[in-house]
Amino acid sequence: MSSTQTAVPKSGSNIVESNPFLQALVQQIRAQDHYGVYRSWSDELVLSPFIVSKEKKRSISVEGEVDPATRLRILCFYRAVATCVETETGHLCQVVIDLSHEGFGWALVWTGRLIVVNRTLRDAQRYGFDSLEKLATQGEKLVKSGLDCCRRFSDAAKA
Amino acid sequence: MSSTQTAVPKSGSNIVESNPFLQALVQQIRAQDHYGVYRSWSDELVLSPFIVSKEKKRSISVEGEVDPATRLRILCFYRAVATCVETETGHLCQVVIDLSHEGFGWALVWTGRLIVVNRTLRDAQRYGFDSLEKLATQGEKLVKSGLDCCRRFSDAAKA
Repeated sequence: MSSTQTAVPKSGSNIVESNPFLQALVQQIRAQDHYGVYRSWSDELVLSPFIVSKEKKRSISVEGEVDPATRLRILCFYRAVATCVETETGHLCQVVIDLSHEGFGWALVWTGRLIVVNRTLRDAQRYGFDSLEKLATQGEKLVKSGLDCCRRFSDAAKA
Repeated sequence: MSSTQTAVPKSGSNIVESNPFLQALVQQIRAQDHYGVYRSWSDELVLSPFIVSKEKKRSISVEGEVDPATRLRILCFYRAVATCVETETGHLCQVVIDLSHEGFGWALVWTGRLIVVNRTLRDAQRYGFDSLEKLATQGEKLVKSGLDCCRRFSDAAKA
């Protein structure tokens, strides 16, 4: 490692570098960065909107429409899960986020005839995680259960 | 049959009465009728917005957002498919319609881990069928393929 990198000992930067799920998530977000705004940003900074403290959550109203940025963040999260499952299994995965105007809905990841990840969303306006570690753990948990599911129902996944 | 009923020999009225899919569809639409507007309408009249001729389709622009009424119509169609599959299999089915602002997207019906119906939508602004017969045939085709799928992957459907 070069000295410039070690000179930035910010908490969480190591976890982003070493975690395949967080790397996949960073890629998803950078792919949406059509104007190159994030080009000079560190991975950690790119992921920072995913970290929402409990206090911050309480201050976000659940009345009315989900913010488009939050909506895109949710989509990126599940797309990152899909990419990780794809890399492991070689099956192309699709993602759908279906949110009502009240912030309730579904997040689905599927391949072939199989639903790999199936989550109900609620209070999507407040979408976020306590820390980068929590974000990584949640993502990995979904990837793992998705892979288990692909193994269990391999015929439906290939259909 | 009573004489009043035979006195209305409008084309299509018989097919609506005798077709389980069209009956399920009528139920879905009437369930959305919160103000009782359709209460005095015949089933055929309730289904009439689903019939869009080729000429009419050409006159509908595919630029811009899908009309909320069209969106609801698509949802009702797939919910009717879901209900028919539910009645046959006893598995509760969920429906998601995911449409982009350009009228492209997915229609999904699933139960457990299994995707029962999986359709891509395009030019959703022009959603409609040539005739009641076509509407019934299309619906029944989806129900049939969904039931086949449930039998084939019964373990994923129950998961």
